[in-house]
Formats: sequence, C-alpha cells, structure tokens
Amino acid sequence: MKEARPLPHYLVQRYHGWKATAFTENKAWYKRLAQDGQRPRAMVIACCDSRVHVTSIFGAESGEFFIHRNIANLVPAYKPDGEQHGTSAAVEYAVNALKVAHLVVVGHTNCGGVAGCHAMCSGHAPELEEKTSFVGHWLDILRPGYERVKDLPEADQIHALEKQAVLISLENLLTFPFIKAAVEAGDLSLHGVLHDIGDGGLLQYDPELDHFEHV
Amino acid sequence: MKEARPLPHYLVQRYHGWKATAFTENKAWYKRLAQDGQRPRAMVIACCDSRVHVTSIFGAESGEFFIHRNIANLVPAYKPDGEQHGTSAAVEYAVNALKVAHLVVVGHTNCGGVAGCHAMCSGHAPELEEKTSFVGHWLDILRPGYERVKDLPEADQIHALEKQAVLISLENLLTFPFIKAAVEAGDLSLHGVLHDIGDGGLLQYDPELDHFEHV
Amino acid sequence: MKEARPLPHYLVQRYHGWKATAFTENKAWYKRLAQDGQRPRAMVIACCDSRVHVTSIFGAESGEFFIHRNIANLVPAYKPDGEQHGTSAAVEYAVNALKVAHLVVVGHTNCGGVAGCHAMCSGHAPELEEKTSFVGHWLDILRPGYERVKDLPEADQIHALEKQAVLISLENLLTFPFIKAAVEAGDLSLHGVLHDIGDGGLLQYDPELDHFEHV
Amino acid sequence: MKEARPLPHYLVQRYHGWKATAFTENKAWYKRLAQDGQRPRAMVIACCDSRVHVTSIFGAESGEFFIHRNIANLVPAYKPDGEQHGTSAAVEYAVNALKVAHLVVVGHTNCGGVAGCHAMCSGHAPELEEKTSFVGHWLDILRPGYERVKDLPEADQIHALEKQAVLISLENLLTFPFIKAAVEAGDLSLHGVLHDIGDGGLLQYDPELDHFEHV
Repeated sequence: MKEARPLPHYLVQRYHGWKATAFTENKAWYKRLAQDGQRPRAMVIACCDSRVHVTSIFGAESGEFFIHRNIANLVPAYKPDGEQHGTSAAVEYAVNALKVAHLVVVGHTNCGGVAGCHAMCSGHAPELEEKTSFVGHWLDILRPGYERVKDLPEADQIHALEKQAVLISLENLLTFPFIKAAVEAGDLSLHGVLHDIGDGGLLQYDPELDHFEHV
Repeated sequence: MKEARPLPHYLVQRYHGWKATAFTENKAWYKRLAQDGQRPRAMVIACCDSRVHVTSIFGAESGEFFIHRNIANLVPAYKPDGEQHGTSAAVEYAVNALKVAHLVVVGHTNCGGVAGCHAMCSGHAPELEEKTSFVGHWLDILRPGYERVKDLPEADQIHALEKQAVLISLENLLTFPFIKAAVEAGDLSLHGVLHDIGDGGLLQYDPELDHFEHV
Repeated sequence: MKEARPLPHYLVQRYHGWKATAFTENKAWYKRLAQDGQRPRAMVIACCDSRVHVTSIFGAESGEFFIHRNIANLVPAYKPDGEQHGTSAAVEYAVNALKVAHLVVVGHTNCGGVAGCHAMCSGHAPELEEKTSFVGHWLDILRPGYERVKDLPEADQIHALEKQAVLISLENLLTFPFIKAAVEAGDLSLHGVLHDIGDGGLLQYDPELDHFEHV
Repeated sequence: MKEARPLPHYLVQRYHGWKATAFTENKAWYKRLAQDGQRPRAMVIACCDSRVHVTSIFGAESGEFFIHRNIANLVPAYKPDGEQHGTSAAVEYAVNALKVAHLVVVGHTNCGGVAGCHAMCSGHAPELEEKTSFVGHWLDILRPGYERVKDLPEADQIHALEKQAVLISLENLLTFPFIKAAVEAGDLSLHGVLHDIGDGGLLQYDPELDHFEHV
C-alpha cells in the first residue's frame, strides 16, 4: 500500500490534545470498555454529512451509540441475496449481536443526497441514472419517497423528501424479520427524527399525527 | 409508519442541553453552513463501534469531516454492477462532488467485526457463512486479509487482521478509477490509522517501513 | 489531595447543559431553596444501584425528597453505642431536624446486595464472611430476613429476600425511639415498596394482607 | 410490620405517569439492564439533601451512576473492625465488584450537616456531642476539616468547611487499600466537586492550585 501518506499534522496535533485531556481523564473507563466490550444502548443511523453531529446533539459518550452513517441515512429493504449490504450488516449486528434497545434514524435538512435524489427522479440529473453511478443507485432506495412528494408544490418537495428519507428507512427496517420480531417482543423500539442544520431544531415523527413535531 | 416511538427522554434532554449551549454559541456558523453547504476537508471511514469516537479523537467540528461508518471500516473493491453499494456511493460523493483532500481509514483494536471475520475464515463461525448472514457477506471483504495473517502465531492474528482491515480498504479504494486519478493528480491523499481503544494510542501506516507506527 | 483529577468532560458538558436549561428555568426557586433551606416532604431510603432511579420514578423535584442510598436499602437496628452509623444519622436528621412526614423504603429486584446476602447466608460466599469484608458485615443486617425465607423453594428465595430487605428495614426503623414516637403521634408514616427493574412495576407492602401488591 | 401505610397518592400518581411515559419509551433498555446487570461508569457520593440532584446535574440515566448518599457526603477512614460501615461497604462494592472507573465526591453549599459540624466543633451544639446523637458522631468524620478552617475569618469558615467535606472524604478514600491500588493501577480516578445550590454553580478541586475552580 505504497500510496498511503502521513496523517496531516493538524489531525496528529488534535489527537495529541485529546490524548492528553479527554483520554487521560477517562482512561480507567476506556481500559474497561476495551476489556469488557461495548454495550451500546442505541443504534443511530445518520447521514455522512459533515454538518450532522449526532455525537454532539445527543452528547454521545464512548460506548453509548452504535453509529452507522451513509449517504442520506438510508436503509434498503431486506434482501438476503448473498451480496454485500453494508447497511443491512450493521443493522443485523446491532440488533442480533449487540441487542440495542433503540434504533434511531436521524435525517437532516439541506441534505445533498436528498437533493440529488429529487433531481434524479425529476429528470434533472441524468448522470445519477447512469449505470456506473454509485450515488444514483444508492439514492434509488429513496425513489418511493419521491413518488409520495412529487405532487406537492415544488417549493415543498425537497423538505418533504428529507422526511421521507427517515420514513422510508423506518419502513424498510421493518422488512427485516429479526427487527420486526424484536419490535414485537418489546426488545427494540424504532425512532425517526429530523435535524435542522441551520436553526438547530430537532423534530420527531409522531405516528398518531403522521407528521414531524418539534421535540 | 405507525411503529415509530417517541424519542427516549434522556436524548431529548441532552439535545436541549446541546441546543442551549453548543448550538447557541455557534449559531452564526451553523446558519452559514446551512446556507452555503458543507465543504469538508477530509472523509473519514470508521467502524460503527460505539467506542470509536473519531469526532473526539480528531476534535471534529461541524463541517469538517464527511464521515462514513460501517462494520469494520471496510471498503469493497470497485464493482459498477448497478447494485446498491452504500460505501462506494459515499466515497464517490466525497471525492467527486465534495472534492475532499484527504481520505482517512480509521481501524481500531477490539473490533467485533474483525474478530468475527477471523472466526468465520478459520471455520469457527458457520453462522456467518450462511447465505442469509449480512454480517458474514460483508466481512468477506476482509477475507484476503485473513489469508495474509493466517500463518502468524495464533495470538498475533487478530491484531494483524485489524491492520489488514485498514490496508485492504486502502487497496480497494485505489481500484476506483476516480480515486486513482485524484491521487495521481495530487488532489487527494490516502491515510490509514489504527486506534487502540484501551490505551488511547493511534498508529498510522507507513509505506516505507510497511508497518504501523505511533503518530 | 494531589490525586484528584479533573472531572470527565462528558460530565462537565452535561452539567453545562443542565445549567443552561433546567437551572435557568428554575433559578428563582433554587435561589429561594438556598436562602430558606430545604423542607422535604419525605425521606426515601433506596439502594445505590445505578438502575434504581427514585428521582425518576417519583418525579422528584429539587427540595422534595431527602434521599439516603446505601447497599440494599438497609437500616440497622437502633444502637446508640457512640460509633459512626451513617444510616442512623440520616434517619435521625430527617425525622428530628427536618420533620419529614413520610419515610419510604424502596427495595428493588435484581439487587446485587440481596443476592450477595443470600449467597453468604447459604454458605456460598465465604469471602463476604471474612472480617475485612465491609459488604459482608453490612449485609448481616439482612441475615434475619434470610432465616425467614430459607425454607421456601429455592427459586423463590431471592425474590422473597428482596422483600425482606424492605420489611427488616421498616422493622428496624421502629426500634428508634424517636421514630416510634413520631409514628404514634401521627407525625410520620412509614411505607415500604419494591421496584421491579425489568418490567417497571411498583409493589407496596400491605400490612392487612401481609404481602406486596401492585400500586 | 403492621405500621406500614399505603404510599401517598401523589407518589402513586407520579409513578403511574413515569410508567406510562419514560418507562414505556425505554422498556427494551430497562429489560436488558435487568437481565444483564448494571455496569455503571462512575460512583457518586453525595449528600442526602433534597436540593442536591446529581441525577439532574449530570443527566444521569438508568445504569450510569452507582450513587451513595449520606449526610454531608462523608467517607470515613478505612477501619476493618468488623462493625457495620455502610459507606465503606458501598465504596467496596463499587470499586471491587462493579469496577467503576470514576469516584466523584459531590459536596454542596448551604449544607445542614456541615453547618451542624461547625456548630458542634465550635462549642455551639452540645446536643450533637451527646453519646446518643447519631448525627453528631457521624459529623465527627469532618472534625479534622474544622481544625483546618477554624482560624479563618468567621464569615468564611462554613464555606471552607463545605470544601473540606469533599477533601476529607477524598483523603479518607485513599486510606482504603483497594482504592489506593486501583488508583495507582490506573483503574480508578478520584474527583471532588462542590455544587452551589443557589446559583447553580459547579466547582472542582484542582490539586495543582489547591483550590476549587468553576468547571
């Protein structure tokens, strides 16, 4: 692997700062976490977006959340076809091996993935529909969400689609037999929230009202 | 999506704490990030493990890192077959759309995914070899790494395989034509590090010495 | 005291979150509580166990409950021998100085202390019977409870002993002359409850029926 | 135990509110905590005072903190004399059985126990010096602290003694051989803080400066 390069100095410097402060304050706990293994209470599925900081928003401490991040916080439907499904693997490990109690899908506003999906589905992004586009194929997961929002006033569609990225994922989660079983047994609960990047808001999906409300 | 449940109160409480402190202190910047979009300097690929806090270790601020997290921080090889590849999509978006300057693969010790791969490849985890195991199929990405470490003394194999999870991913990254091109053009650099959960250490891969050294 | 270390950052962060939200919303009341002193309505005696949250279960607000927590929520019998008795001191202060109206002993299921007492009394924990074991000596308070349950079917003994940890404590409370006097004068009432960690249940002791009933 | 009375209705009512909301939201986690046992990260030693809400201040969730509360958050020195020492038992269990990583002594302002100790040591509370006073004997633990503050201006003595209640406890903790060993092995760290009831402040002891600083 001759192309690897030394870590940029600013990251090394920050790491040393962390080691001398946060790590040192907590080293007994980190040692214990290494020895005894993790026992996270919840799995969080969030977007890769650099502005979505679930660890900050939820004050995540080492050992608390099993976190999967992908483009647009999407979960595909259950499809045990022997292919590699990273998201499905993460969900399977969290629920079956770690036995997390909560599964939280965190969507967000201003999502490039959601905007890309909207452009693609409305015919404005042919490059995403090419066979070689990984992003395009990935965003296909959200296509059923586009069908639900495409008749709204155009100005509302993107925001509605951000919510669909949460709802479609929750719906797809329930297509996994082990998730459905855990939910029915009271061993797991599902949660859907939407984070507003600009105003710092947090909305959660309320199934009674069938919409997102501020927490 | 009638199965969604209200967010556990402790998360709501922590969120309100964050909103009243960190968000309030930075709201001008967060507003700007929402309006102007993200411009992350680096993409980080790390494990979902709850004990791996790249945001802490690298002092990540909102907007700095595009973060993809999956089981065992693995990247599959380039395979434009029209299927859904979440990791490939994340990498494609980071390099082609966001034009990140660095791509850092962060492995870690005590990784359940790596241990699972070792058990599977050495014949001790038949459940991971079943067709329906998402985790097993995902960990197949690391199988070539097992081949490289299987003749080491048994006590050393797991730790060596944790390093292979970083190296295989880096090697697979270079199979993506757009990554190879960006690296050759000097627009992107690749980095591989291994974080020690218990002692807080950070090692990086040095291609001259062909091994991992403390930063 | 040169060994003291800085508070772990996650606690500092949570504190600042509390300060900016719950404290700020209530600062007039907290100021008044500081100036006028506390006037709690009840004393609660509960276990140190991290899963027993009396403040949550009873929605405790600042100033409401004088809370003593020790291993297995035990109260020793009255013994004015000039030695240091932390539990007796707490009870004396609550009843004589603060004049609380209620004294509630909160037991719980899955109690490590009760299980330890059972192991010790049935001869399976010799380490707790050593002279240097503080835990063993403390659990001696519950030994009379073991005598009452040891002839039950083995599978029922631990749960019965959890209830005895509440009853023995209530009985011992009445050996304090000032408690007996306050109870007889109608200035104080005693209550015994058992909290089920797993199913969230709450049972209270009913002296008519001589057993614990769901509230 | 014929003197036990039904739980006051307001507590039953609040319990049912908790059961229907917080418990229901988290029942999968609470079930798991019951099955797998607790693994608290820290032990907190705080005062019984109804105005000291460590669970609020530190956002304590079920399973996080092993909490011992006694009058004036005092820890006696190590004394394995075969008598019942509830505080020593709690500390022994937390460090040796639960292997907590942090031990935090939380003092507070406006402490009735500290004021009582000051009155007793300065000769103004003869009732606390009687042989039958449990409170007086308990507060003897803090007597060495009085010796250190008695020559300060009188207006400063009480506040200084509140800090001594934290420091004396930390010093006494180190007289326990198993605590000293755990601290030296890097398996445990000690922390001392003082909470201001009225203004919501939090100070921590800094051994470099030998005084308490705002966090």
